[in-house]
Amino acid sequence: MAEIITSLHGIDETLRDPPAGAELLVSKKNLRTDGLVVLANQAQVGVRTTSDAELTKIAEGREHRGAVLVLPAGRKTRETTLEAFLETFDGDQGLVVLLDGVTDPQNYGAILRSADQFAADLVLIPARRSVSDTPAVFSASAGAAAWVPHAVVTNLTRALGQLKDKGFWIYGADMNGTAASQAKLTGRVALVLGSEGKGLSRLVRDTCDVVVSIPTRGRLDSLNVSVSAGVLMYEVRRQQG
Amino acid sequence: MAEIITSLHGIDETLRDPPAGAELLVSKKNLRTDGLVVLANQAQVGVRTTSDAELTKIAEGREHRGAVLVLPAGRKTRETTLEAFLETFDGDQGLVVLLDGVTDPQNYGAILRSADQFAADLVLIPARRSVSDTPAVFSASAGAAAWVPHAVVTNLTRALGQLKDKGFWIYGADMNGTAASQAKLTGRVALVLGSEGKGLSRLVRDTCDVVVSIPTRGRLDSLNVSVSAGVLMYEVRRQQG
Repeated sequence: MAEIITSLHGIDETLRDPPAGAELLVSKKNLRTDGLVVLANQAQVGVRTTSDAELTKIAEGREHRGAVLVLPAGRKTRETTLEAFLETFDGDQGLVVLLDGVTDPQNYGAILRSADQFAADLVLIPARRSVSDTPAVFSASAGAAAWVPHAVVTNLTRALGQLKDKGFWIYGADMNGTAASQAKLTGRVALVLGSEGKGLSRLVRDTCDVVVSIPTRGRLDSLNVSVSAGVLMYEVRRQQG
Repeated sequence: MAEIITSLHGIDETLRDPPAGAELLVSKKNLRTDGLVVLANQAQVGVRTTSDAELTKIAEGREHRGAVLVLPAGRKTRETTLEAFLETFDGDQGLVVLLDGVTDPQNYGAILRSADQFAADLVLIPARRSVSDTPAVFSASAGAAAWVPHAVVTNLTRALGQLKDKGFWIYGADMNGTAASQAKLTGRVALVLGSEGKGLSRLVRDTCDVVVSIPTRGRLDSLNVSVSAGVLMYEVRRQQG
């Protein structure tokens, strides 16, 4: 299945460094779509004018604003390495998300989708007892797996150490921590999320600088991990401004 | 399948008004579990001492702290009516969540689960083009469908009017609104969430007092609706304190 981008902002960004074989479909003529056509021409990306109905069909129910970028099927996902990230990252504000034992592809995909929306700089998953890029993950991520830089690490605790050396503060999400809105989530922030059943492993928890919690008062023990991840990424970006 | 409650807080609350046929299983003896046993005895709920391993098995991977409350299978979910809610609600701070066209049982279940965690007062879904209580919803809600008061309304716009009459401000979640953290989300708050593809229907959007957005900057067009719902419930409760 081809992958599509429906947000005008996302199309704009992608056209500045497009993959081979991309095609821009346009159904409305206005300032925004005209701008995209100019970008597409500069990048030698094919442009096709079509009907609104056709675009809606291609977008498979997702909202669009008169333009859709179609990317060739079978593209690789945006896998990188922690080392490559550490070499190049130079932001004052950063957001890295580490998943400690998240095994459900739906949850992993949803977290990648939120990582796209909150512009996380990197998502890290351990090689063992974890999920990997599969069609189910790709689909649950609504395509975000192609955009969000993510890497597999063999040792999560060591990865946390490398992030600390790079100036990241490590915030573990768990019960009985500081309320997220009371913690100082600015600068270079690494969020660690555990599995739903078991929370963070002890070794990982001990490596965290701060344990943060989402204040809740329900009958169940926890939020869905993809909801927790979304809330915490939201809170980090809110504080980082 | 029997339903279980694993959080000590949830067990405590439930034992104050337990359904018939409930049973408390305890594997650890400490101040917290002793207190639950006293409550269970007062409420004439059966108590059984068991092993940690047995409890872990019954909890099906969910974390527990030495006590699990098992509720009889086939209980009804916590369905109510908007009218019953409006008659009895008297809080200064309120949180009602309305779903405008959410059709996916996974998303609806996840939203009920978050509604439990953020102690939403009511969840409303329209009778048409929407989900209803099914085993899939129940399962995705991790049992929260049994706890979270929720009601079906035939006319969402009329329901919004009734909530306004009760002093609720209506906040529609959509793109291009006020950033949620900049909106005043205190007092009696009703959040309206639209379907992922289409957002809010025009009539509903026009009925809202304020349109709020979650600031994002990704390539995709939106967060998963259950993540959006979780983030906005979090933001409301953060502001309400």
